[in-house]
Amino acid sequence: MAARESTRKHRYIVFGLLVCSLVCAHAQSDPLPSWNDTAPKKAIVAFVEKVTKDGAPDFVPVDQRIATFDNDGTLWVEQPVYTQFAFALDRIKALAPQHPEWKTEQPFKAALEGDFKTLASGGEPAILKILAATHSGMTTDQFAKIVSDWIATAQHPRFKQPYTDCVYQPMLELLAYLRANRFKTYIVSGGGIEFMRPWTEKIYGVPPEQVVGSSVKTKFELVDGKVALMRLPEVNFVDDKEGKPVGINEFIGRRPIAAFGNSDGDQQMLEWTAAGEGPRLMLLVHHTDAAREYAYDRQSSFGKLDKALDEANVRGWVVVDMKNDWSRIFPPDK
Amino acid sequence: MAARESTRKHRYIVFGLLVCSLVCAHAQSDPLPSWNDTAPKKAIVAFVEKVTKDGAPDFVPVDQRIATFDNDGTLWVEQPVYTQFAFALDRIKALAPQHPEWKTEQPFKAALEGDFKTLASGGEPAILKILAATHSGMTTDQFAKIVSDWIATAQHPRFKQPYTDCVYQPMLELLAYLRANRFKTYIVSGGGIEFMRPWTEKIYGVPPEQVVGSSVKTKFELVDGKVALMRLPEVNFVDDKEGKPVGINEFIGRRPIAAFGNSDGDQQMLEWTAAGEGPRLMLLVHHTDAAREYAYDRQSSFGKLDKALDEANVRGWVVVDMKNDWSRIFPPDK
Repeated sequence: MAARESTRKHRYIVFGLLVCSLVCAHAQSDPLPSWNDTAPKKAIVAFVEKVTKDGAPDFVPVDQRIATFDNDGTLWVEQPVYTQFAFALDRIKALAPQHPEWKTEQPFKAALEGDFKTLASGGEPAILKILAATHSGMTTDQFAKIVSDWIATAQHPRFKQPYTDCVYQPMLELLAYLRANRFKTYIVSGGGIEFMRPWTEKIYGVPPEQVVGSSVKTKFELVDGKVALMRLPEVNFVDDKEGKPVGINEFIGRRPIAAFGNSDGDQQMLEWTAAGEGPRLMLLVHHTDAAREYAYDRQSSFGKLDKALDEANVRGWVVVDMKNDWSRIFPPDK
Repeated sequence: MAARESTRKHRYIVFGLLVCSLVCAHAQSDPLPSWNDTAPKKAIVAFVEKVTKDGAPDFVPVDQRIATFDNDGTLWVEQPVYTQFAFALDRIKALAPQHPEWKTEQPFKAALEGDFKTLASGGEPAILKILAATHSGMTTDQFAKIVSDWIATAQHPRFKQPYTDCVYQPMLELLAYLRANRFKTYIVSGGGIEFMRPWTEKIYGVPPEQVVGSSVKTKFELVDGKVALMRLPEVNFVDDKEGKPVGINEFIGRRPIAAFGNSDGDQQMLEWTAAGEGPRLMLLVHHTDAAREYAYDRQSSFGKLDKALDEANVRGWVVVDMKNDWSRIFPPDK
């Protein structure tokens, strides 16, 4: 190859490096554009910089950079009800023609009529009946398809857009920022693991194998002459409160160095994270923005934040004041 | 930069590419040097080539390249007894001074005396008592340390070397070959998940989060003023036979496209893998080499291979004849 051609190629390489360094510098200058320049953003950036700085005392090797995120209320909206609950009620309506008895039988009657007061009065047994009727009795493949079909069309009652658009833009940026710094990002949610897995990769960039959640028991059996996993009407694991550290240990087998939640259901996950050695980041999203999203904490039926907020204040965990710390809530329209 | 300097740099790059291509070509020419040029090796290479060839009808995207491996008898020796069983017996001996009653109480007396006949006659209840005494009553961190300490020093009774050296060199090459082709390699074992996780990354290159196994229940609680996960004397999950597809679905949330086992305990994992759409590879290691390792199948107490061998023959799954298909069994001495 002639020297001239080589020089031309060399120029392309230099140009490429220049473009890259400009882009990277820009990304570095503001990895979290939807976060205001307040304390939480500073704490996040300071943490990431110190654990990724090679040779520094707080450096954490790549394989130990585990970050766990709650889902409901931390990554997406959980009001006026958990999305999975809306899914269950829609499924009751869809299945009602095959169950004429539901017209008179509780809690199905209340579910069909949208009578939340009666539903709530039924307590846990009512919820379990609704869950059994809507979340079991099909194979895992069938359930994944039901979830995918529903989530592609269902809309949030207030925001009038798909639930998967009711995700927090600042948290999407945080997930991407952590991954760019070679963190492995996990979802650790009280929600159903198989309710989340069909869409978490597309929406959050979190693949199925990095989703931990609650589950029903499944049974390996022949269905229509083919082996399948049948979903049973029996709770297998509840990935909430004390269950979160248990689930993290069982599924991941490593302790996170950063954990993100928004409710008392996340308290033990943050405690478990905090109890490890070395640098740690614990963060709670506090819903303080009734205008743009919702404002709730100690009295809420969904995503109650009470004891965890007290502990965060005592221990200096980062608390995001949604109204003041986030410049936008949802992603821009596509 | 002067054109001459640029040309010199260009030469270095060309030289680097040349070295790399030679090394890569060599690696490509024999990715599995400890496998003889017999049918199993050909089947493995043909499978990997067709699923990784971009644009080909059988191409599988990287994120779906999931391969699951049984451990005992597939990746390391499981005779004369499962390694974890040897660990449990050693733990009984180590704990005996704190339990003078074990001198007369079964099954501990038999365990201390190495009286396998009496132990075996106790059946599952005896095994569960041994497991409870050795695998629970400590935190997960404490257990990980006990396992690490033991595995660093314990030796296989016949091969007089650490158990972690009694791993199959051809399978190490297979793991590496799959990973080089961007497969994610998982262990899916009937063995204890927390018995494996402390050493699988170092020995097999499989990180803790890619190990699925049997487990005891754990409880999140305060231990010495610090939150911890306490291991309870209660079975949580048995990752064997029908449990393997259940565990794969729960932990990974994707169906493998390749599965590797050696016993009837792996049959359902291979069936579940085979039942997916698209190209699939199912392989069983048949222990046929009494001279270099062990020869056993239909009558063995550990790693019985009977029904799965029949199914493999009927369905054309790959069966490795250890004696004829592997040129060496264990890694060379370091």
